[in-house]
Amino acid sequence: MTPPAFSRRGALLLALSIGASVSGAAAQTPDPLPSWNESHAKRAILSFVDAVTREGSGDFVPPAERIATFDNDGTLWTEQPAYAQAAFLVDRMKALAPLHPQWKKEEPYRSVLEKGLGGLAGANEATLARLVAATHDGTTPAAFRAIVAGWLADARHPRFGRPYTDLVYKPMREVIELLHAKGFKTYVVSGGGAEFMRAFMETTYGVPPERVIGSRVKTVYVTRSGRAELFREGEVEFVNDGKGKPVAIEQAIGRRPIAAFGNSDGDLEMLQWTTQAGGRRLAVVVHHTDAEREYAYDRKSNVGKLDLALDAARMNGWAVVDMKTDWKVIFPFQQP
Amino acid sequence: MTPPAFSRRGALLLALSIGASVSGAAAQTPDPLPSWNESHAKRAILSFVDAVTREGSGDFVPPAERIATFDNDGTLWTEQPAYAQAAFLVDRMKALAPLHPQWKKEEPYRSVLEKGLGGLAGANEATLARLVAATHDGTTPAAFRAIVAGWLADARHPRFGRPYTDLVYKPMREVIELLHAKGFKTYVVSGGGAEFMRAFMETTYGVPPERVIGSRVKTVYVTRSGRAELFREGEVEFVNDGKGKPVAIEQAIGRRPIAAFGNSDGDLEMLQWTTQAGGRRLAVVVHHTDAEREYAYDRKSNVGKLDLALDAARMNGWAVVDMKTDWKVIFPFQQP
Repeated sequence: MTPPAFSRRGALLLALSIGASVSGAAAQTPDPLPSWNESHAKRAILSFVDAVTREGSGDFVPPAERIATFDNDGTLWTEQPAYAQAAFLVDRMKALAPLHPQWKKEEPYRSVLEKGLGGLAGANEATLARLVAATHDGTTPAAFRAIVAGWLADARHPRFGRPYTDLVYKPMREVIELLHAKGFKTYVVSGGGAEFMRAFMETTYGVPPERVIGSRVKTVYVTRSGRAELFREGEVEFVNDGKGKPVAIEQAIGRRPIAAFGNSDGDLEMLQWTTQAGGRRLAVVVHHTDAEREYAYDRKSNVGKLDLALDAARMNGWAVVDMKTDWKVIFPFQQP
Repeated sequence: MTPPAFSRRGALLLALSIGASVSGAAAQTPDPLPSWNESHAKRAILSFVDAVTREGSGDFVPPAERIATFDNDGTLWTEQPAYAQAAFLVDRMKALAPLHPQWKKEEPYRSVLEKGLGGLAGANEATLARLVAATHDGTTPAAFRAIVAGWLADARHPRFGRPYTDLVYKPMREVIELLHAKGFKTYVVSGGGAEFMRAFMETTYGVPPERVIGSRVKTVYVTRSGRAELFREGEVEFVNDGKGKPVAIEQAIGRRPIAAFGNSDGDLEMLQWTTQAGGRRLAVVVHHTDAEREYAYDRKSNVGKLDLALDAARMNGWAVVDMKTDWKVIFPFQQP
């Protein structure tokens, strides 16, 4: 039931078809964004991509500088009713509970074991850090990715009854394939753990591990019986959210993106930093407006709150995707 | 006087020539490493590259996993008599001194202003951190890269009287071009500052900024008069040396390299971690043995000490480059 792997052949065909549109056969050109209704956001994306990649364009950007960054939760896949990584944390805690009998009596573990995601509600940062430490440490990075992959294969979303990796946004996959076909390097820049996301990002979106930037737990290099290994300690070392995103982008990429996609206030600074520079820029905010096919939320949501960034989008003329009206389908398994 | 930019056309021609060797015209194949004498290290590199890239080879590695990491100082350019970044620090301090009249009286600044690099000798980590803070902060990352580029254009190496960017190793450029032509992603993983290296790495070695991993100073996101900017604070946040290198590689790339190149004990853990895994691996240690054309040093050097890593190389059968006998030329400007 996992979605088909990102298709390199598809990207190539797309590249050829885009090439054809440039050489004049516009009427017969396949739409590179077929899951999108005609809308302001779709036009903004296509117009931007054309302007920065067409030879001779006044806004032409050399391929090496075509950097596009994407938030993950709520921008590339569903983040409601809770982040997938929070669901992983709860399930991981249950799986590890037999090794930690004291968790049944001790907070904050007890509440999570008894109430699941409800036990996380209202947890402050220090509490969350303890829960992350209890569930995300004690392995090598490769072993942790394997644990996440195993969980993704088994876990089901509470509303849709499908693997979380089915709940990726088909229209956003088309955007990423279009950007790849046009010589962009796409990066996922998200509050989720880097190793958590690396467990699925290449198969769901064609974004390889070296282009996944996330939050980090402290990792140390150890030698045991002469064997070298990396080992995850539970301590949260860096939270890749808000003001942290532009910093992490600079440290990892060393270039300012020319396009950024987000959906919440945690993406505001990435969108600001991407757009506040010379040359043509693109900022896109995915607005969750479709309670029937997915979820509808913004200014007052506990998860993925979109308030300041929605005002900023309107003030700065950033493209806002109205998921209900702009997207013909949301998930790959839905029919238009 | 800067060296010619890394040639993409050269890489393409090289790719074609390598292709030709695979298809059987071995006798007429141009040598992809023409600055190398026939030696154990040269054979180790060519044999490894062939084994992991030839279709049908039992050691074949898919392109996405062809990751090679290179130390910089002493591996890709000269690090004697002092790291280029130390020379930059001294010159930067002199340039900034008029703005800080108290430096004339106050240590550790006074010694550096009076004695130059000699004033750095014996400085402990805390002292070095203060000197870095005084010379590497207060700018945006882009402005800092421009300052470094300006310094590189003006500064001259004390012995060779040439820009530091002339003092890159021609044989190592050939290795990187060969790896690029064979589908590898090369990364520079060095104790030098990431932004310092990004100022020249793309033009000297064809390694783009997103594949430069270095030490970091703390960088913050600030908004001033409505404008977003990143700002370098002087505090050293991460030192990319020794055990830090495998950690930084994992965080940035999310894959274990299959080849690593270093020259000092600071590269030991990167070489260990690269080689201690299944499948064909390559570890190369550049040994500075040529006092006439460059420098000769190893176990007792203050800069680029090569002691434990030399023993490890011999114990593990890593390739050791004897610069004096293995390299026909060292710098691009030298005649073979």
